[in-house]
Amino acid sequence: MDVRTLKLAVIRGDGIGPEVVDEALKVLHAVTPDDLVIEETPFSLGATRYLETGDILTEDDMSAIASHDAILLGAVGGDPRDPRLAGGIIERGLLLKLRFAFDHYVNLRPTKVYDAVATPLAAPGAVDFVVVREGTEGPYVGNGGAIRTGTPQEIATEVSLNTAFGVERVVRYAFDLADRRARKHLTLVHKSNVLVHAGALWQRTVAAVGAEFPDVTVDYQHVDAVTIHMVREPARFDVIVTDNLFGDIITDLAGAISGGIGLAASGNINPDGTLPSMFEPVHGSAPDIAGQQKADPTAAILSVALLLDHIGRSDLATAVTRAVEADLADRGTTQRRTAEIGDAIAAAATARTTTA
Amino acid sequence: MDVRTLKLAVIRGDGIGPEVVDEALKVLHAVTPDDLVIEETPFSLGATRYLETGDILTEDDMSAIASHDAILLGAVGGDPRDPRLAGGIIERGLLLKLRFAFDHYVNLRPTKVYDAVATPLAAPGAVDFVVVREGTEGPYVGNGGAIRTGTPQEIATEVSLNTAFGVERVVRYAFDLADRRARKHLTLVHKSNVLVHAGALWQRTVAAVGAEFPDVTVDYQHVDAVTIHMVREPARFDVIVTDNLFGDIITDLAGAISGGIGLAASGNINPDGTLPSMFEPVHGSAPDIAGQQKADPTAAILSVALLLDHIGRSDLATAVTRAVEADLADRGTTQRRTAEIGDAIAAAATARTTTA
Ligand SMILES: CC(C)[C@H](C(=O)O)[C@@H](O)C(=O)O
Ligand SMILES: CC(C)[C@H](C(=O)O)[C@@H](O)C(=O)O
Repeated sequence: MDVRTLKLAVIRGDGIGPEVVDEALKVLHAVTPDDLVIEETPFSLGATRYLETGDILTEDDMSAIASHDAILLGAVGGDPRDPRLAGGIIERGLLLKLRFAFDHYVNLRPTKVYDAVATPLAAPGAVDFVVVREGTEGPYVGNGGAIRTGTPQEIATEVSLNTAFGVERVVRYAFDLADRRARKHLTLVHKSNVLVHAGALWQRTVAAVGAEFPDVTVDYQHVDAVTIHMVREPARFDVIVTDNLFGDIITDLAGAISGGIGLAASGNINPDGTLPSMFEPVHGSAPDIAGQQKADPTAAILSVALLLDHIGRSDLATAVTRAVEADLADRGTTQRRTAEIGDAIAAAATARTTTA
Repeated sequence: MDVRTLKLAVIRGDGIGPEVVDEALKVLHAVTPDDLVIEETPFSLGATRYLETGDILTEDDMSAIASHDAILLGAVGGDPRDPRLAGGIIERGLLLKLRFAFDHYVNLRPTKVYDAVATPLAAPGAVDFVVVREGTEGPYVGNGGAIRTGTPQEIATEVSLNTAFGVERVVRYAFDLADRRARKHLTLVHKSNVLVHAGALWQRTVAAVGAEFPDVTVDYQHVDAVTIHMVREPARFDVIVTDNLFGDIITDLAGAISGGIGLAASGNINPDGTLPSMFEPVHGSAPDIAGQQKADPTAAILSVALLLDHIGRSDLATAVTRAVEADLADRGTTQRRTAEIGDAIAAAATARTTTA
């Protein structure tokens, strides 16, 4: 993708979402050069709007968003104890609906341990890997049901759907990514000794696509074992490709062992580029600290870097990530306000683009 | 359960299984008092036997094992690269078959951080929790399939089956356990914002059974978020109750953040006591280090402690765990052989039972 005018749909969302998006946009504006015009359209979506209007995502919302080049999303979801929001109604009706409708089959989640950032691990080593999480299949398809609900005879099912089409395209993306990285190593994560049908499809696909990438070394790990390696030797990973649910679980763990979920960025990507990709921090809306300027906007800012990469402006993406790295190196133990962190990163990023 | 004569089926299994079982039995013998008679029956099962005879677990094996009070299992599974063992044929045909056939609906996996043991976490805190993993339902039921296998039109499914009957009994067990512990805290782990049908069944069941346990405080965590807490603040957990697959994943992580999988013990328990429960280390058969006296038998030895607890001999169980704790405190950096560790723990355990 190569754009001169970036039409950006902005979903600030709930909780700390608006605060972190404000800082992400601040940094985006700071690095935007004259040859790039950004047209932002705000979409007021999330738990707050749902509780006010009863609408989560209308057909009109969907087609309006679809006409954009990309989406920047803060976080959605209200108070988890609110019974009106039970069963992930916002998460499924908004976040997952966008991922599925816009065919975000690559959910890209990089993890890096920065020197200056405290991690819960005693000796993490040089951690720098990317999880390529499948985004449109697996146990996330909403194919389940229940009978005799609320009785002692209740039966509830959840069906994981996996297709050669869906697995092949994400595996190919992961190989392509691994091939462009220094270590050229790909780890497939699944649970093929128990989920034998889906597991076999993933394993066969990795073997087949892998034949086209002779320079990439391939490894397989069960999802349970991968959690062990991720805390004991996370530096071993380069690119990980995995199913939607396993990817959900291991990327939170990856966030935790690196600088924490406050640094974890993600891109929900439609590599075909016909529908808008969506960039969002991995963290949630954290309603308990909302509006207090306590949230760390770094994950949202790094999501902007992924967005810039996606639209073909890796020069600007690098300016953002370098500015983040500089800011992380500077962070003392004093707690800064959300806007202060954004200001500092924006200033550092500006310096980098103007001197470049 | 209260036994004078313990009929114990012993499945030493593959890889390091025989080595660690030898030490576990050594310790069991060391603590066995005069009023307890142990009758051991060896069962030669696992990948080795399968590759020799084509049998994994015959009807005869099953009925012979069923006539025992309990099972001690080392580890099963051969070389993961051996195509004859693909698709988890041994794990499913042996381990999972026993768990399902003997209705091991409680898969009990305690985690403790011992002072003297190195953990990958910089500051783990006082970690002492138990995961109660459901053992007979969920995505482990083997209910999946594929069509057009090996073609671009392949579709593979995996179905998670969850019943009120199955969830209620394991949730009740977990509450009962939490109620007997000091902190009396229970955390339900699921992914109810995505797997809404199964998630709702688990959440409703926890709410209903919880009403009978007014002293137990209850908490809910999504499985992705729980991985964060487990590396950042594992001391917060007391009892965790969860589904079969989530339990598989988070107990490997729990093993990793504590002393490593070499210390993680488990009991596959049929609380009704009509069918034999099975005790096994969480680790696998590790064929790469088999027969070299490199394996740590501690997890197998701690599994014997769970077995002793299960048969109503918590006095002997305590002797074993205290002996393990003493040995852990003594461990320097010199690598001991499997048998040396067993000898040391057996000696410490003997001292404790004879002076008690
Ligand atoms: C909010 C939830 C539906 C979502 C997911 O499970 O994908 C989140 O955990 C994430 O990882 O983006
Ligand atoms: C070997 C495998 C089938 C098993 C499981 O998934 O339950 C193992 O990982 C465990 O945790 O006991």
